Amino acid sequence: MTKLDRFRNDFELFLKKQSYSSGPQNLYEPIRYIMGIGGKRIRPVLTLLAADLFEGDALKVLPAAYGVELFHNFSLVHDDIMDEAPLRRGHMAVHKKFGRDAGILSGDVMLVYVYQYLLEGGFEPEVLQSMLSTFNQAAIEVCEGQQLDMDFENMQEVPLALYLEMINKKTAALLWASLKLGALPFAKDNEAELLGQFGRNLGMAFQLRDDYLDTFGEGHKTGKQEGGDILQHKKTILYIHALEHLASNDRQRLLDIYGGLEMPADEKVKTVQEMFRSVKGDQSVLERISAYEAEADKNLKALNELGYDISELSALSDFLMNRVS
Amino acid sequence: MTKLDRFRNDFELFLKKQSYSSGPQNLYEPIRYIMGIGGKRIRPVLTLLAADLFEGDALKVLPAAYGVELFHNFSLVHDDIMDEAPLRRGHMAVHKKFGRDAGILSGDVMLVYVYQYLLEGGFEPEVLQSMLSTFNQAAIEVCEGQQLDMDFENMQEVPLALYLEMINKKTAALLWASLKLGALPFAKDNEAELLGQFGRNLGMAFQLRDDYLDTFGEGHKTGKQEGGDILQHKKTILYIHALEHLASNDRQRLLDIYGGLEMPADEKVKTVQEMFRSVKGDQSVLERISAYEAEADKNLKALNELGYDISELSALSDFLMNRVS
Repeated sequence: MTKLDRFRNDFELFLKKQSYSSGPQNLYEPIRYIMGIGGKRIRPVLTLLAADLFEGDALKVLPAAYGVELFHNFSLVHDDIMDEAPLRRGHMAVHKKFGRDAGILSGDVMLVYVYQYLLEGGFEPEVLQSMLSTFNQAAIEVCEGQQLDMDFENMQEVPLALYLEMINKKTAALLWASLKLGALPFAKDNEAELLGQFGRNLGMAFQLRDDYLDTFGEGHKTGKQEGGDILQHKKTILYIHALEHLASNDRQRLLDIYGGLEMPADEKVKTVQEMFRSVKGDQSVLERISAYEAEADKNLKALNELGYDISELSALSDFLMNRVS
Repeated sequence: MTKLDRFRNDFELFLKKQSYSSGPQNLYEPIRYIMGIGGKRIRPVLTLLAADLFEGDALKVLPAAYGVELFHNFSLVHDDIMDEAPLRRGHMAVHKKFGRDAGILSGDVMLVYVYQYLLEGGFEPEVLQSMLSTFNQAAIEVCEGQQLDMDFENMQEVPLALYLEMINKKTAALLWASLKLGALPFAKDNEAELLGQFGRNLGMAFQLRDDYLDTFGEGHKTGKQEGGDILQHKKTILYIHALEHLASNDRQRLLDIYGGLEMPADEKVKTVQEMFRSVKGDQSVLERISAYEAEADKNLKALNELGYDISELSALSDFLMNRVS
């Protein structure tokens, strides 16, 4: 069993033991449900790997790893209400299964429990304070990122810098925190931050690859509908790049399509893909991904030069980055 | 100016300085709005009074007082969505003014900011840890209390003990925490807890008095519709007491009325008031209120015997308890 598999196992065992057995069960059943229907567990595994990198006992940061996964799921539960998404991970979304109010209130208490797990994790008071500050920064960023994402729906054009800020907050911040939380009990602050920066760069690359694959990935490999973002008129980096580079006629046509112009789905996807390609949007986003990957690599190399074994994180990073789906 | 007025003033000044000026303003405008439309500020004033009781500088716990008020408002914002309440403090509820999604997300970030204010309040790491644990316990209780309250809507009969648990969690827990948070930086743990218990007893008495006044208060004094709880079929302590004591015929009639039996509002209120009175429900709840008040008094006396000046808290408690509205 690889270390990665072992950590994922350790985490699943810890998760199964959290029963929320006292208190009103209508409040806690949705938590057991959403935490139980899977997910890749990338964030908690990162927390355990971070402790391990700094030669700490990964089992000691299980409460923090659990807290990070709980927060991630809290944000999904509330986002799914806001997006009116019926499904999550192939199952009914919490608000569909248990109702809107259960989704709101169970989400709220999940957020409180993140702090509970950190507080009861057995960390030294000073370390705990740093961990809480780290988590809190990420939590604020995630809320701000979600707000920006919602704001974009009402904006015709989104500045590129604001888009990058949005994914930095909505996605990358929690990867930053996941790693830093695992590191803080065992590392110097600046080393923990360095590892956190690796997570942030990884998160940026990961999210941009998501954007890329949604539009240019091959549907049969990703398992998703090809061009889903286009059909939902999502203002991804490809759209923003195209608006910045297309000549006036095509630019207006793209605005019209995103403004709601009726067109058969296939044709719409193909037309927009062509427009993106015509201004080398695909190439541009791949270059941007590479740049974040290079930064992430630099972060890992710096840690390696400090004497830490980066092999596991390199492997995980390669795995996440070479995916086609 | 009395100490009470001075503390309320200090708090309002602190509140006005919190601007949330960076980050997406669609996220922060609802926070400024709900925090700005008033409220009695009972909880934060309790926090300041607690510090003062233990001869601490009340200004030092302003961030904790603010956190408590922020949490209280967070819970109102989310509760108003669940209850579909159009108004709050005579103004539009947040979800009515800014939309459901803004209500959810701004509420979420308010909850995160409670921790942010505690973390950045300048408290010693050990004290901070106790404060966070205290706050967290209350936050979990408030969520559980809200869930119980919602559960009651689908129950025909609510056991008295469960009703008391509900108000203990939904209302009294936060008064407990408000006082304890102000005390912890300056008091021994057991003294802080003693003051917290005073808050819990005060909270129980306060909520029961709310139930009593809603049904037996004189409308022109309370400014509320007389019998509002009855018309909304709320399972208050008076209802629960009546079901436990009414003879079979009347019992069934009360169940029918709460089950939705159509009746002119005036007649419904009068009929149910009569039923409550016929089994001495009014007297019973007044006795229960007195018992909690007596417990609260005992807590204060014990603090007085330890050498602390309880006059301000006595005055506030008398003010809260002798109200007719």
